[in-house]
Amino acid sequence: MLDQNSLSSPLSLIARLDASHENFPAQLSQLLAFEASEDEAIDRTAAQILADVKKRGDVAVLEYTNRYDRLSASSVQQLEIGQHELEAALASLAPERRAALEMAAQRVRAYHEVQKTACGSAGFSYTEADGTVLGQKVTPLDRVGIYVPGGKAAYPSSVLMNAIPAKVAGVTEIIMVVPTPDGIKNPLVLAAAAIAGVDRVFTIGGAQAVAALAYGTATIPQVDKIVGPGNAYVAAAKRRVFGTVGIDMIAGPSEILVICDGSTDPDWIAMDLFSQAEHDELAQSILLCPDAAYLDAVAASIAKLIATMPRKEIIATSLANRGALIKVADMQQACDIANSIAAEHLEISTDNPQQWADKIRHAGAMFLGRFSSEALGDYCAGPNHVLPTSRTARFSSPLGVYDFQKRSSIIHVSEQGAQTLGVVAAELAHGEGLQAHARSAEYRLKSKN
Amino acid sequence: MLDQNSLSSPLSLIARLDASHENFPAQLSQLLAFEASEDEAIDRTAAQILADVKKRGDVAVLEYTNRYDRLSASSVQQLEIGQHELEAALASLAPERRAALEMAAQRVRAYHEVQKTACGSAGFSYTEADGTVLGQKVTPLDRVGIYVPGGKAAYPSSVLMNAIPAKVAGVTEIIMVVPTPDGIKNPLVLAAAAIAGVDRVFTIGGAQAVAALAYGTATIPQVDKIVGPGNAYVAAAKRRVFGTVGIDMIAGPSEILVICDGSTDPDWIAMDLFSQAEHDELAQSILLCPDAAYLDAVAASIAKLIATMPRKEIIATSLANRGALIKVADMQQACDIANSIAAEHLEISTDNPQQWADKIRHAGAMFLGRFSSEALGDYCAGPNHVLPTSRTARFSSPLGVYDFQKRSSIIHVSEQGAQTLGVVAAELAHGEGLQAHARSAEYRLKSKN
Repeated sequence: MLDQNSLSSPLSLIARLDASHENFPAQLSQLLAFEASEDEAIDRTAAQILADVKKRGDVAVLEYTNRYDRLSASSVQQLEIGQHELEAALASLAPERRAALEMAAQRVRAYHEVQKTACGSAGFSYTEADGTVLGQKVTPLDRVGIYVPGGKAAYPSSVLMNAIPAKVAGVTEIIMVVPTPDGIKNPLVLAAAAIAGVDRVFTIGGAQAVAALAYGTATIPQVDKIVGPGNAYVAAAKRRVFGTVGIDMIAGPSEILVICDGSTDPDWIAMDLFSQAEHDELAQSILLCPDAAYLDAVAASIAKLIATMPRKEIIATSLANRGALIKVADMQQACDIANSIAAEHLEISTDNPQQWADKIRHAGAMFLGRFSSEALGDYCAGPNHVLPTSRTARFSSPLGVYDFQKRSSIIHVSEQGAQTLGVVAAELAHGEGLQAHARSAEYRLKSKN
Repeated sequence: MLDQNSLSSPLSLIARLDASHENFPAQLSQLLAFEASEDEAIDRTAAQILADVKKRGDVAVLEYTNRYDRLSASSVQQLEIGQHELEAALASLAPERRAALEMAAQRVRAYHEVQKTACGSAGFSYTEADGTVLGQKVTPLDRVGIYVPGGKAAYPSSVLMNAIPAKVAGVTEIIMVVPTPDGIKNPLVLAAAAIAGVDRVFTIGGAQAVAALAYGTATIPQVDKIVGPGNAYVAAAKRRVFGTVGIDMIAGPSEILVICDGSTDPDWIAMDLFSQAEHDELAQSILLCPDAAYLDAVAASIAKLIATMPRKEIIATSLANRGALIKVADMQQACDIANSIAAEHLEISTDNPQQWADKIRHAGAMFLGRFSSEALGDYCAGPNHVLPTSRTARFSSPLGVYDFQKRSSIIHVSEQGAQTLGVVAAELAHGEGLQAHARSAEYRLKSKN
């Protein structure tokens, strides 16, 4: 939470900062500070559940699920949702909602099909003068687990965004897990699973679901990778099974950073900030603009609009604790700050936004121009909405087809090639004290045989 | 360790298995079983060191380094090795060793240059009929840390394999850390750093080095990703800083799986198995062949050759505890078993090996044909020798240029595009109860303004 001294007024809904202020670097650092609480108790519980499911399989999964989700299933088989139930959920949707979900799926699929080609799915291979062939083969994962949170954060759009890239990559089987506390199923989530082509769905969650997917049980197949967001127990469990299976990122709170030149309708920008803030109290919404009067206008829009929002308490808390309207010297400084923030979502709401996008090195997704509201990307523009949070865009990428593929090197050394490579390898192997390596290379030398 | 019942003779140097035996699946599973010991004491110590370095910075790094590496440095600055010392190490090498190191570096660089192009480094972009532009921008990481183990496992080839892909990707600054217990520096490692273009080298190691790179100190710059192998403390520390920085895989013991048709000189294959076994007692060497007589011949070669190896104790322990010669029904079964093992290194030592390589879905690297000994790939063929171990080739890839890049989605929705996408996004946002998302999309609809 920001020091109240940094607020322009104790009553303002959102902090106002000025990048020219000598304290600004410290203020920005304070604003961005977020550390996922590393609760040792949660970590220990997750570890115990993992060990228990690894040992007792279905029996443990059933016990935890009945206990934590207040169910009374008598077998893990009963926790599976069949394809007919997924199809029924799809058929139950209002026509316009179903059409929207299908259009979103179609656009997400189309984008990831292009990505599949562009990210080198064909692999490569080249032949050297001596006939030696080197290359890389790209193959899809066999089986993937998708974790979908239950309860309030059960988002059908997340089902599409996690499952479709896996399908496009060519993953053979997609297993989805979604907890259903008190037995309440979300028909939109099941419909999204049907549309995305999820193969099997189990109503399990928490660390026990992660364990079941990572180790396999009699009923739940072992997967090769687990993706999708979850609560602190799920995150702790995923971190611990990393290596046994692949995992995606550990997601932090969602963030939006808007760079505006001061000419977009301030209501639009206020609502864009709200759209991030409404996710949860820890979400972060920041606006950078060189025009102080425009920041005033956005602040006024915030004050005017917030009362109209159904999720106004969450929005108000998020904006007050983690939001900021920041006056910058110019657009170049805005881009510099954006690179240091490495935001999950970056809106560049300006004329000719490409000139500024060219200066951005770190961002999960860039939304260019006044019409590219983040909400369009969240649902249906096509690119993935699973994006690196908490400055991890410095080193990681949107979820994509590449997350469901892996590569194998190809080394086919010709007899002639082995003569030159063998001498080099033997020399270096001797340098490292690995004589069997050296001998193995030397055996292939004609002069030594 | 294998049950002695599965051995053809209690005196044999390596287990003999038959894939047609009804117990084979259980025997194979027992053979492959390896679990990195999750020592809670090591994990706690690593956590304490991380917290201490995060809090006290250079002072803590200096204390731990002096204590664990038995040094008496008075500042972290003293622990930096300057470029002139790296160059001096390079100049000190015997000419043939320097030439070998430089040729290896040149070949590794050439391979990764091809990979850079093939893995989609140019990103992509496409324009839809309504003028909406979608795409992805690919950028290198700013700063990367490379961990190089000290002591007996200090391999100059690993310096090349970790640093060169980062350089090819365009990483701005590469920071290498390498512990120097008792102050002993390995000139080959320093020479490799000079050749690979490492920017700065610090003689620190352990969890304190991981902490320094992940959090930064007054002297050691914070990096965006840490790669490279280390001991159990290093692995525990890397696992814990994952998220603050990117990390590569947590490496397990090295493995080789050889598929042979029975026509390669058995001494060659025996030596290939040795070359893996000599790494350490936990390394794994397995041979699959449909010809029982050939397995006898390889067993005889092993018995004949092992006494000649300087590292014979390590080799004998590794082969006895984790090695196997496995009789398969045919080459198809060999490929099926290879897919279930998902080996780090897979040699296909046959005529026309491509026909079998086409059947392999899971392997870190494939070495095709009788002349492609794994040792050539370890040093100088060109592809990376940092490969997924312990069956992680099911979901992960050789270290590559792509590990030092990240992607940003590009979404530039046209005014016209916002009219169709906005309706869909608003419909789905209402379905998820996120009204600010809906409103943000609806503001861009002309009909609503």
